[in-house]
Amino acid sequence: MGCSVAAALRRRGLVQSVVGYDPDADALRRAVAARLIDQAAGSAGQAAAGADLVVLAAPVGAMPQLLQQIAPRLEAGALVTDLGSTKADVVAAARLALGAHFSRFVGAHPIAGGERTGPEGADAHLFEGRMVVITPVEETSAEALTRIEALWRACGAHIERMSCAEHDHLLASVSHLPHMLAFALVGRIAQQPDADRRMELAGPGFRDFSRIAASNPRIWTDIALANGGALGRELREFSDTLRQIADAIERGDGAWLHQFFERASRARRRMNGHPDAG
Amino acid sequence: MGCSVAAALRRRGLVQSVVGYDPDADALRRAVAARLIDQAAGSAGQAAAGADLVVLAAPVGAMPQLLQQIAPRLEAGALVTDLGSTKADVVAAARLALGAHFSRFVGAHPIAGGERTGPEGADAHLFEGRMVVITPVEETSAEALTRIEALWRACGAHIERMSCAEHDHLLASVSHLPHMLAFALVGRIAQQPDADRRMELAGPGFRDFSRIAASNPRIWTDIALANGGALGRELREFSDTLRQIADAIERGDGAWLHQFFERASRARRRMNGHPDAG
Repeated sequence: MGCSVAAALRRRGLVQSVVGYDPDADALRRAVAARLIDQAAGSAGQAAAGADLVVLAAPVGAMPQLLQQIAPRLEAGALVTDLGSTKADVVAAARLALGAHFSRFVGAHPIAGGERTGPEGADAHLFEGRMVVITPVEETSAEALTRIEALWRACGAHIERMSCAEHDHLLASVSHLPHMLAFALVGRIAQQPDADRRMELAGPGFRDFSRIAASNPRIWTDIALANGGALGRELREFSDTLRQIADAIERGDGAWLHQFFERASRARRRMNGHPDAG
Repeated sequence: MGCSVAAALRRRGLVQSVVGYDPDADALRRAVAARLIDQAAGSAGQAAAGADLVVLAAPVGAMPQLLQQIAPRLEAGALVTDLGSTKADVVAAARLALGAHFSRFVGAHPIAGGERTGPEGADAHLFEGRMVVITPVEETSAEALTRIEALWRACGAHIERMSCAEHDHLLASVSHLPHMLAFALVGRIAQQPDADRRMELAGPGFRDFSRIAASNPRIWTDIALANGGALGRELREFSDTLRQIADAIERGDGAWLHQFFERASRARRRMNGHPDAG
């Protein structure tokens, strides 16, 4: 997603020169070859040196170390932001690593498809019409906040400000839990001796439902651990809900099931009214 | 889906005249207006009278009554088939209702998108490249079986024969359980006081994942009850799997989580190699 940010900013003439760093040297080379970045740095610290804007696009578990690496190299006026899917942990790591510079750190989470990774997935239009959650804290400089939000708006996104805790709580229910469900469903099927036969029988509904199970395991291990409190609660409550469905089925309670399905179906169909749903 | 079958057969010149019946008089009128059917019958029995081929497209819970209604009106040579998402219950109901004519009943389940209902969702190409599960039993006439399979192949589908029990067991894991998960996820969010805010935060992954939650509640109540044994087991086992994930998160077991996600991600990415996945 870092390459999509670079592409989106460049397309709008908002950046002069993009310096990139990736621990995957091959991905870094491909990003230069695709002209997504102008220059490949040898380290995160080197990439941050001299930059007006530093965008951290990494699994959230890598953020503490990354922040420590860039901290001593930041220009006094440099803005720092991230694209992490969890916010309490990343913002806490930034507070710890950046010291006085933390006022120029603005936590951000663009709500946009993130299954495609690497330079090949870069899309300058990825953020158009999407929401970007911004999680300022008490120390955040108003000027830094305004500038980061303006960059996202320029990329076509709309901004929703909230606290880190609220972000993590809400995302646990609408993003982190669904990913766990998709991983668990596909993982269970993949474990069966007749997995291939089952996959063949899976209809288009299964394909849509399970698409997010193709997501990056490293990224999702980090998210699950970083947001463990809220996600653990969601998993246990959802587990109880599934037992309630099983109970209703076993007592043959069609009225309960119909009401349960009807409420969800109505809510999901209402969502289809939204411009980018379907 | 009945209208899609009519459209697919007509497009290939396999039917001369289509008589339709639907308890929803308005849907029936629209199907005639759209020339999906040539003639609207006043009852299921009337629609079956004189037909060479009878296709039962109804929620599986409606099948027993429907079969009883058509049984006395069937021509001696008429082929009867269904599109039901569960097979053991429908085939048992056919055995009970059709008597000697049961040898000319061939249970079928086309694995194709079924969220769009009504004549407006009709698609003559719906079955192209799709799998149709056929569940013959001991009594099934070989000639009836061959003819029904030939019709599906003519519509572009490929055939997979299996027993009713195997069908219901496999479909519980790749179709019925995912629907329950999607209904439960969207239903839980819809119940929250801040449901709209949560829905706004839902990214493209959530939209794909939850699309099947818009499915027809009546159809799914019937399926859940008809396949309660297999589905109840799936729900309880899945519920346990979610608790295992929560446990791993709570003990901070990144290695376990990574392995769990990795297996699913690999399986789902392999599935992308299939022609109609993505």
